[in-house]
Amino acid sequence: MPHVVLLAGGVGGAKLAHGFAQLLPAGKLTIIVNTGDDFQHLGLQICPDLDTVTYTLAGLANPDTGWGRTGESWRTLDEVARLGGPGWFRLGDLDLATHLTRTHLLANGHTLTAATQQLCQQLDIIHTILPMSNSPAPTLIDSDEGLLPFQTWFVARQWQPAVRRVCLPAEVQATPQVLKALEKADLVVIAPSNPFVSIDPILNVYPIRAMVVDLPQVVVAVSPIIGGQAVKGPAAKMMAEMGLPVSAAAVADYYNDLIDVFVYDAQDRETFQTDERPALCTDTWMTTPAQRRRLAEAILSYTMELTNQ
Amino acid sequence: MPHVVLLAGGVGGAKLAHGFAQLLPAGKLTIIVNTGDDFQHLGLQICPDLDTVTYTLAGLANPDTGWGRTGESWRTLDEVARLGGPGWFRLGDLDLATHLTRTHLLANGHTLTAATQQLCQQLDIIHTILPMSNSPAPTLIDSDEGLLPFQTWFVARQWQPAVRRVCLPAEVQATPQVLKALEKADLVVIAPSNPFVSIDPILNVYPIRAMVVDLPQVVVAVSPIIGGQAVKGPAAKMMAEMGLPVSAAAVADYYNDLIDVFVYDAQDRETFQTDERPALCTDTWMTTPAQRRRLAEAILSYTMELTNQ
Repeated sequence: MPHVVLLAGGVGGAKLAHGFAQLLPAGKLTIIVNTGDDFQHLGLQICPDLDTVTYTLAGLANPDTGWGRTGESWRTLDEVARLGGPGWFRLGDLDLATHLTRTHLLANGHTLTAATQQLCQQLDIIHTILPMSNSPAPTLIDSDEGLLPFQTWFVARQWQPAVRRVCLPAEVQATPQVLKALEKADLVVIAPSNPFVSIDPILNVYPIRAMVVDLPQVVVAVSPIIGGQAVKGPAAKMMAEMGLPVSAAAVADYYNDLIDVFVYDAQDRETFQTDERPALCTDTWMTTPAQRRRLAEAILSYTMELTNQ
Repeated sequence: MPHVVLLAGGVGGAKLAHGFAQLLPAGKLTIIVNTGDDFQHLGLQICPDLDTVTYTLAGLANPDTGWGRTGESWRTLDEVARLGGPGWFRLGDLDLATHLTRTHLLANGHTLTAATQQLCQQLDIIHTILPMSNSPAPTLIDSDEGLLPFQTWFVARQWQPAVRRVCLPAEVQATPQVLKALEKADLVVIAPSNPFVSIDPILNVYPIRAMVVDLPQVVVAVSPIIGGQAVKGPAAKMMAEMGLPVSAAAVADYYNDLIDVFVYDAQDRETFQTDERPALCTDTWMTTPAQRRRLAEAILSYTMELTNQ
């Protein structure tokens, strides 16, 4: 089995991670997760994308919301609202336990990588989930309402302010674990996550972009745009606001020389302009566990065939 | 009505505060609360004595435990334990809301005094609850197992390590609100709280002890020792360990020239050695709201009579 390294944001990344997780044995899947969305709230260190991936692999994710846990309750946050505290960022009673435990571990000198590892072990996740960095790397949104912290734009303002530019911090360093995973990768997959606020923040972490470009191994990206729309979230809206065509092909162009293979949905077969790059056209919807597994299988078969040619 | 200022720790302080709260109108009761027990845990700022007083005045206190809230649930903390986090300090789902809201307010630049005021307002408390200081003032216990942070000794080790000395931090400043309350006090009452770890930490805050000693108004202390035993907690055990007689009279001696009146329980009538100081012997048990009110009334009547002589 190849060692697959997946670069992932939240929901789309978590679903494809779940697809590979069903196929690969322990030690063969590493998911490098965006932490540009992370923020401090109510004194807690909150890592939305890490949690979405973790909850999904642990079978605890809420399938209806795309965030948070299944079987969630809201006793604490309802009381926070009664006490005049902020309720705009929805933190359920079970979800809070993750943030409290992580904040405790960080306050006691653990890195975010070590804290994430403990949470994964306690939830019996056999695959490796890594934050892209142990240092804060907050994404800022330069919008028509000014420069907004990511969660202010994404959750509080429900990604309505038009995006002019995504601002990513300079000089954030990857962890040794991330570097090692990329070094031993047989296949790198860029998940169907938002290219601008999920994948770019990972690539922006030094030296991840350069490592991915220089890798001799195959690098695949999966389109987050299906039929001219984002499966979930602001990707399509952002593309339009930043003057890009809203299409799978535009995503392929955006990743440009970073990738060797592009995967797009069968729904875009007619309109997708093939370039010289190998491309896999297949069903990329990942609602069910079986669909997730099938897409991961299709990516593995296609790239293994390509490598063996 | 006189303006009463109560110096209070946790349970005993909260009960007597509840007694005065039933008698006095808004603006006439200020409770200065020990914050030497405060600590950071799971990233949250936790103020056990402030919360016990607040919950008691709001009618939300759990009467069985002496801490925390009535109708409490434990969904989040159970999940923290599952995730490998610490469960030794019991934080219920409703209680957590207080710590989250306070931590949020502190992180946004509010003082502990302002955060406490917001919590009290939201819970419709008409009396004034003040932390003794806005600065951290952690009490340390010099024990036969070494120097322990207060909550490690009190909760994690269930106050079993023998106490050699209570260590209080130097140069902690009182807030302007505390100074103003003492300046306009008509009566200062030292609650039946632990003299060493609840009252001394308040008196240790500059310049509270000097102000209380110099006040022309009457200063009353209520004995936390009844029949040679502490009503709750380690007061009696600590007195023995520090070589003091375990009696109401020994508490009166300990407060010495700080107080003008000592209140002790009818149960100690036979053994209490009267000195020259006026003393009120009455029923000091405060299980029910009516008992609390009656004790507060008895203190008010006795001291008003004394003043009018």
